[in-house]
Amino acid sequence: MELGNNKERSLVSKVMDGLISGIVEERYGAILPPQDVLSKEFDVSRTVMREALSMLLARHMLDVRPKIGTRIRPMRDWRMIDEDVVSWRFRAKPDKTFLRDVIEFRTLIEPAACALAAERATAADIAGIRDAFDALHQASPGDSGCQAADALLHTRILAASGNQFYQQMAAIVRGALTIVNPILSQRPDGWSNVVAAHGRVVEAIERRSPPDAQAAAAAMIAYTADELNRAFAPEAA
Amino acid sequence: MELGNNKERSLVSKVMDGLISGIVEERYGAILPPQDVLSKEFDVSRTVMREALSMLLARHMLDVRPKIGTRIRPMRDWRMIDEDVVSWRFRAKPDKTFLRDVIEFRTLIEPAACALAAERATAADIAGIRDAFDALHQASPGDSGCQAADALLHTRILAASGNQFYQQMAAIVRGALTIVNPILSQRPDGWSNVVAAHGRVVEAIERRSPPDAQAAAAAMIAYTADELNRAFAPEAA
Repeated sequence: MELGNNKERSLVSKVMDGLISGIVEERYGAILPPQDVLSKEFDVSRTVMREALSMLLARHMLDVRPKIGTRIRPMRDWRMIDEDVVSWRFRAKPDKTFLRDVIEFRTLIEPAACALAAERATAADIAGIRDAFDALHQASPGDSGCQAADALLHTRILAASGNQFYQQMAAIVRGALTIVNPILSQRPDGWSNVVAAHGRVVEAIERRSPPDAQAAAAAMIAYTADELNRAFAPEAA
Repeated sequence: MELGNNKERSLVSKVMDGLISGIVEERYGAILPPQDVLSKEFDVSRTVMREALSMLLARHMLDVRPKIGTRIRPMRDWRMIDEDVVSWRFRAKPDKTFLRDVIEFRTLIEPAACALAAERATAADIAGIRDAFDALHQASPGDSGCQAADALLHTRILAASGNQFYQQMAAIVRGALTIVNPILSQRPDGWSNVVAAHGRVVEAIERRSPPDAQAAAAAMIAYTADELNRAFAPEAA
């Protein structure tokens, strides 16, 4: 199978590599030179340069600021997770092994992140977490605002951990929530239990108690895991 | 900034989305129809179809098998981690926060993965882990074979955990090793301590003792963290 225009593709890769070398060696400062300057520097067409820049833009390595130019984003924002693949993966009908793996992964990451958030969250982080929780509390189970508030709450807690790898894992956690929430919101009392479990995590972070935050997050995920196992019980592995 | 040919790009996205829908809804079976059939089905040029397929190929969602065709890979192989971004990120000079984050992340993931490996590894997994360890043991510190053997050992342990999310994290662990190993191999006795620490992990997995594997992995990473902290001590955060 011949895929794409290989010559142009390899030129784009070479330019990307050159741009990245310049960025990691801090040759450009905070703002990249204009596109036509870069095209000349690399001796490539504007089309190839544009393509290379768009690849870096898609990975959150660059930011286009009107009147300022193309800013190099802080490296902690660079997207190590391919969010497209994560969302495609979570669109497929989950099998038992996948559910097990998701639960294992969340059980590992989220309690640890909650403990760090209790330790490191700034006042602004905590206010953002509380806001997202309030939105979750007020939303009706099953509607889209509810899913959005829940995703935002988990994302903000992972961000408040201060650890850039945990932050990147938010995409996987959000993927997991798209499977889990439709099931939880259909169980009688399921949703109010879920909201209460989240509330205990938020309170522990506010009280700045890492062990309580960790325990509350573990309990929150264990509850979810039980409900998932019940929902998928009739299906063989 | 205008990036790329937007019309063609959005067409490629649309085709990718259609292919993925077909894949996750299991409409194609194990082998994709030939490219010209797909081009007709989606009513797009062969160039656009080729571009869409190459995007899925790069993400390990497809496999080209001579004489067989384009096989759909098991979903657990789909690359959620963008390995390019990971390797670029680890090429930059590490600051203290980045090192802290890497160590926190490895301390979370690897002991847990080692415990699961002790529980779930197949005989073939264990043989592969032992082989990689033997290669590490025989390599001279600082040469490229040594780095390759170490990367392979960590990758195989994560794979043996059986958890597809842990497996995906191997790219991050390999990135970490590219920072850590040049430092460890320069310390007097550093490298032999490292090899011995890895040996205890491998033995615990072979003995199928999850708690010992977990403890040995935690000790291995703690040793690395101490050496890193020493190496970067004069530098302010």
